[in-house]
Amino acid sequence: MNKFAIAIHGGAGTILRSNMTPEKEKTYKDALWKALTEGEGILEKGGTAIDAVEAAVCSLEDCHLFNAGKGSVFNAKGEHEMDASIMEGNKRNAGAVAAVRGIKNPIRLARKVMEKSEHVFLVGDGAEEFAKLHDTPFVDQEYFFDEFRYKQWQKIKGSDNFQLDHSDKENKEQKFGTVGAVALDLDGNLAAATSTGGMTNKKFGRIGDSSIIGAGTYADNRTCAISCTGSGEYFIRGVVAYDVHCLMELKGYPLQKAADEVIMKRLLEINGDGGLIAVDALGNIALPFNTEGMYRAYISGTGEKAVEIYAKG
Amino acid sequence: MNKFAIAIHGGAGTILRSNMTPEKEKTYKDALWKALTEGEGILEKGGTAIDAVEAAVCSLEDCHLFNAGKGSVFNAKGEHEMDASIMEGNKRNAGAVAAVRGIKNPIRLARKVMEKSEHVFLVGDGAEEFAKLHDTPFVDQEYFFDEFRYKQWQKIKGSDNFQLDHSDKENKEQKFGTVGAVALDLDGNLAAATSTGGMTNKKFGRIGDSSIIGAGTYADNRTCAISCTGSGEYFIRGVVAYDVHCLMELKGYPLQKAADEVIMKRLLEINGDGGLIAVDALGNIALPFNTEGMYRAYISGTGEKAVEIYAKG
Repeated sequence: MNKFAIAIHGGAGTILRSNMTPEKEKTYKDALWKALTEGEGILEKGGTAIDAVEAAVCSLEDCHLFNAGKGSVFNAKGEHEMDASIMEGNKRNAGAVAAVRGIKNPIRLARKVMEKSEHVFLVGDGAEEFAKLHDTPFVDQEYFFDEFRYKQWQKIKGSDNFQLDHSDKENKEQKFGTVGAVALDLDGNLAAATSTGGMTNKKFGRIGDSSIIGAGTYADNRTCAISCTGSGEYFIRGVVAYDVHCLMELKGYPLQKAADEVIMKRLLEINGDGGLIAVDALGNIALPFNTEGMYRAYISGTGEKAVEIYAKG
Repeated sequence: MNKFAIAIHGGAGTILRSNMTPEKEKTYKDALWKALTEGEGILEKGGTAIDAVEAAVCSLEDCHLFNAGKGSVFNAKGEHEMDASIMEGNKRNAGAVAAVRGIKNPIRLARKVMEKSEHVFLVGDGAEEFAKLHDTPFVDQEYFFDEFRYKQWQKIKGSDNFQLDHSDKENKEQKFGTVGAVALDLDGNLAAATSTGGMTNKKFGRIGDSSIIGAGTYADNRTCAISCTGSGEYFIRGVVAYDVHCLMELKGYPLQKAADEVIMKRLLEINGDGGLIAVDALGNIALPFNTEGMYRAYISGTGEKAVEIYAKG
């Protein structure tokens, strides 16, 4: 019997139980369930993995709790510059955008780059021009406004500091990072998608791993689909998403072993912190992270279903 | 005895003997020798691999024959938008810039991103702002003007076409693509660097593989240093540079076998064309390409020295 599977994340980082109230925890879990359910609805009807990851990521982008789409942090200019990428495991097609502003759902734009252009990666004004030609919904700057994000920015504005959304140990009103989804559909196709608002007070057109195929996102039907979240610079240098694929393809590792090896060992060797979500062609799910927590939810190929925040045990 | 090695490329593509005159061939070979010699001069004195690849790439960027720096092609707006990346194999540090304008040597800027910022990848206006803060030489638009490049652009301007600099079979006055360098120094450190002007008439802030760590550039002292050139979108999807590293690290392949497998088999499976240059920790050199030719020159660890354009045999 064919089976489907899906996993989503809303960022990894210093998520401490001591900073959480039951109400707040419920708010996050509800948002994760909602996104998971959107993807599940598509997959159980025989829809494609690429539609499922796009829908799940859009749901997270539309939620102000996560640092992507609507919830994107402020950059040093008080703008919201977003990155996203998407890949399908069948023909290994991919699309990505970086440093785009005013786009309601960057992940939809990444998919349009994959399907409507001969390119993989478009950035900045050029990517926005492409978006306009392809009926991509734009929103005003106000759409992204959020009191918490604004205060977060005001606190470090004017300094040379920047911060990963999930590395702010002091801030009790913390919101967390990058979002992503991976899925296996009933036809055996895999897909992965990642979207982010980057770092608060970021300057200089900084791009992390979220829009980089191989670093933040990768999918290959022969192995797995992966979406990463964490300290982007280290994920780029470690080519983290592709690394999981390579351990499976070239060493014959099962998914969990490959994912653990990359996050718990290889990434730590270069001092990177964060996590990833992955699904393989059998519907197995792996969700390793080397931080205190990672917002995550999944339905495995065996029908196991959960939403989790902290490390177990 | 310690040894050093270096290889450089000036792009791969449809380089046909029938389009070449002895004079033109000499001009290209002289430019390649000059760049190689700059790198060699640094390495034989005990200089670092990272200094050597930067110097070799600067030499190619300063030469109007190649599509990088001074010789960069025109984009759809008549501008010159350049991408570059650099990586050192010791600590696997990396720096990259994309869609930058007016920078005399994008590879120097990529190195500054690596050394003077906490980031890996900066794009567009933001990257130019960073350049200004770090005393990076800027040049006027006129610096890049070249009659041949201009005509190349005029020919397809206004159309929706764009072209890889090395895929223009009709054009007998053809100039070739992306440039790069890889090196091993006397201390056993590896480094790789890649720089490009992208595609003629390119739109929408398109970025190829040249600025993507893992796709166009990668270096790890445990295996090799790689710089790629070709149809960038396929090199991104194939995570080509890192793929060579993985075959060496995870399968134990020697350099030549790994590099051949990636360019002659794995890249072709997704219809990608181009080539790469690579050097390993023993000073072996590999220069595979699946196109008619690749501008290239090298000095191997055994002292073998050559400059070549076409496929052998």
